[in-house]
Amino acid sequence: MSSRPSPDLPHVVVLGAGFAGLNFCQHLAKDRYRVTLVDRQNHHLFQPLLYQVATAGLSAPDIAQPVRSLLRHRSDITVVMDTVESIDVSARSVTLAHGKLDYDFLFIGLGGQTSYFGNDHWAEFAPGLKSLDEAVDIRRDVLSAFERAESEPDPELRRELMTLVVIGAGPTGVELAGTFAELTRRVLNRDFLHIDPAQAKVILIEAGPRVLPAFVEKLSTSAKHQLESLGVEVRLNSKVEDLREREVQTSTGTIRAANIIWAAGVGASSLTRSLGVETDRAGRIKVEPDLSLPGHPEVFAAGDLVALKDADGKAVPGVAPAAMQMGRYLAARFNDGPPDRTPGSAPTPPFVYRDKGNLATIGRSAAVAQIGALKFSGTTAWVAWLGIHLIFLVGFRNRIAVFFSWVYNYFTYKRGARIIMGASKGHTGSPPGSR
Amino acid sequence: MSSRPSPDLPHVVVLGAGFAGLNFCQHLAKDRYRVTLVDRQNHHLFQPLLYQVATAGLSAPDIAQPVRSLLRHRSDITVVMDTVESIDVSARSVTLAHGKLDYDFLFIGLGGQTSYFGNDHWAEFAPGLKSLDEAVDIRRDVLSAFERAESEPDPELRRELMTLVVIGAGPTGVELAGTFAELTRRVLNRDFLHIDPAQAKVILIEAGPRVLPAFVEKLSTSAKHQLESLGVEVRLNSKVEDLREREVQTSTGTIRAANIIWAAGVGASSLTRSLGVETDRAGRIKVEPDLSLPGHPEVFAAGDLVALKDADGKAVPGVAPAAMQMGRYLAARFNDGPPDRTPGSAPTPPFVYRDKGNLATIGRSAAVAQIGALKFSGTTAWVAWLGIHLIFLVGFRNRIAVFFSWVYNYFTYKRGARIIMGASKGHTGSPPGSR
Repeated sequence: MSSRPSPDLPHVVVLGAGFAGLNFCQHLAKDRYRVTLVDRQNHHLFQPLLYQVATAGLSAPDIAQPVRSLLRHRSDITVVMDTVESIDVSARSVTLAHGKLDYDFLFIGLGGQTSYFGNDHWAEFAPGLKSLDEAVDIRRDVLSAFERAESEPDPELRRELMTLVVIGAGPTGVELAGTFAELTRRVLNRDFLHIDPAQAKVILIEAGPRVLPAFVEKLSTSAKHQLESLGVEVRLNSKVEDLREREVQTSTGTIRAANIIWAAGVGASSLTRSLGVETDRAGRIKVEPDLSLPGHPEVFAAGDLVALKDADGKAVPGVAPAAMQMGRYLAARFNDGPPDRTPGSAPTPPFVYRDKGNLATIGRSAAVAQIGALKFSGTTAWVAWLGIHLIFLVGFRNRIAVFFSWVYNYFTYKRGARIIMGASKGHTGSPPGSR
Repeated sequence: MSSRPSPDLPHVVVLGAGFAGLNFCQHLAKDRYRVTLVDRQNHHLFQPLLYQVATAGLSAPDIAQPVRSLLRHRSDITVVMDTVESIDVSARSVTLAHGKLDYDFLFIGLGGQTSYFGNDHWAEFAPGLKSLDEAVDIRRDVLSAFERAESEPDPELRRELMTLVVIGAGPTGVELAGTFAELTRRVLNRDFLHIDPAQAKVILIEAGPRVLPAFVEKLSTSAKHQLESLGVEVRLNSKVEDLREREVQTSTGTIRAANIIWAAGVGASSLTRSLGVETDRAGRIKVEPDLSLPGHPEVFAAGDLVALKDADGKAVPGVAPAAMQMGRYLAARFNDGPPDRTPGSAPTPPFVYRDKGNLATIGRSAAVAQIGALKFSGTTAWVAWLGIHLIFLVGFRNRIAVFFSWVYNYFTYKRGARIIMGASKGHTGSPPGSR
């Protein structure tokens, strides 16, 4: 038990231990504030590699670190594992599932959640990929479908079990489609006697005219070719009209598939709508240039739930580097003293996003990269992606374990985490656990 | 897709991909039989290290290997992931949740399950440790209780959240109690501000007069001392009379605890009772000396669900080496030709168990070992235990990953898999996942 923080210091409540909240805490000078960090999980998640857990390349603990151990040496920061239920900015208090917190300053870094654009009932038929639990569920459901296909006599049903649809060709959708195609064609291929996993279909559906729309058109074209050479069927200009159990209805036809994954939309945490401030269509908070809430100089927001055009007039994207930069920007601000905007004080310099480039991976030796004027694809981009993700991956042990898994997967085409756990949705007769 | 096995060969159905079934398959000569291996999981589990997953030392995929990849090169073996519902030995058929299998020969290796000695409703209050899912559930519940204790104002309730009871001082109970004591006292100790994990109580309850009754008395005494020096409270001659929500009532008093783990009893899979053959009190099949079912020379059983006194009159214990030896013994038998006992044929040599010694680990540098006349404890026994478990751990990758985790844990006192996933039973307000 470390010593407790002094009760006389200003109380900063930080909601969310994602990239924004964690970077804020880590860069905040010690013992200047009394900080309470709230997250509904006990771990910080390295979200950019979540798709690797879903596709059986990494195991769940590889990409997560307990928040408490990351902040072990900070006796000024109390970590609370709890769910935020509501925020009352006028009373300066936050209600949790198991208690209430009063604050002097509030940092909202609750991140995004899967958005079905008003069709929330689609979640049942097409899960999104935002948490470790969802990643493990997807891995289990896809692997279970192949197990079931192996003993399914009806060819129609077998085809359905071996079809996987990914909706949305942003970075997550492209990563999922490419890696699943590899998994079925190269890894599972050697494991089955009665089915031929090479006949598995991975279909990537995109409403717009190209994959990876955040990249230049040349790289979108390259990414599409790389996906196709991995065996992914890419359907562009194909809008999802309805989702049902094992069925996707699009503007270009209907597909039957045992597994459908939703990678088409991310919205802000739904708590933003209760703040009484202006939000955009996705529910993101329109913050001031210094990331404070309009009318509330003691409340700040950062990360995926913020809608901001920075000083250059460019919209800040909802990516990990932007969240980290916002956390560090606010830590620096707090390190200069409590950020009260008294009349006549010097204006605060606005947040400026430094775009360090854009990378997306597609599969083994397949990726696209766009760094300043540099644009490249294939193995070079893939190696760059690998290195950058390893450098940013939190925690020394995870770095080694992940690196080992990657090298091993690369040379052997095996996948270490190919383990089905837990009860699956309807694929197996009864839950495997005994309770 | 590999070539399918010839339909003309005798059909051997193997139930269970545990140590017995897997060793049987791996040692069976190729293309002599048409084999169907059924397991409700897609993985072979290295059960002796399951407690390491429960205590956050290893992650789940470290101790499991997909059955399909272990038998990748065997085109004569079809792997089916399904649940066995019933066995009809007179019709020579097995009913699965998703189909039916007729056999010429049957190998039953379904293993054991947690037994509450007729009090099945206790399962709700005190889970057992037999599957990966149960291990992950226990890890989550124990870690969540500490998270909840950190913000619990009521000292009575906080004490309850920080108390863990393990029932049964066999090898699994001793391993769990010792490792949990280490986890709370050395690992979690540095993570919390408001609670002192060193005040956590780990209580090991045993009905008999000593821990590890399968060992000589000197080693039982040593194990008890090693447990106590790790901080475990050992209560011997203490019989469980009733279990309720967060409460254990024993012959020596009642204990309140947020987490109670049942390591007191293992019985055979409940399917054995439907076979119409004699079983012992734990439901284990009383097999012939050649492991066949009385009256059914075409049906064999092996592993934890067998009750057998071997040729020397000694009861064969329900441990991994015995299951492996039985699997190999039967494979050799089958390799000599289909095991039909036609009248007048030479009698089959009976199964003989080779006891290679007994090892139990207690914690870091703490273990007891009994190998022939050799009896030792402490660091030497622990190093022996470590080496032997690494050698037997299936699969090259797992061996490296586990070794790395162990070395890392040993030198840093950190634990890599300290991640809470999934919805916990009542500790948190709402499930962390979004669906």
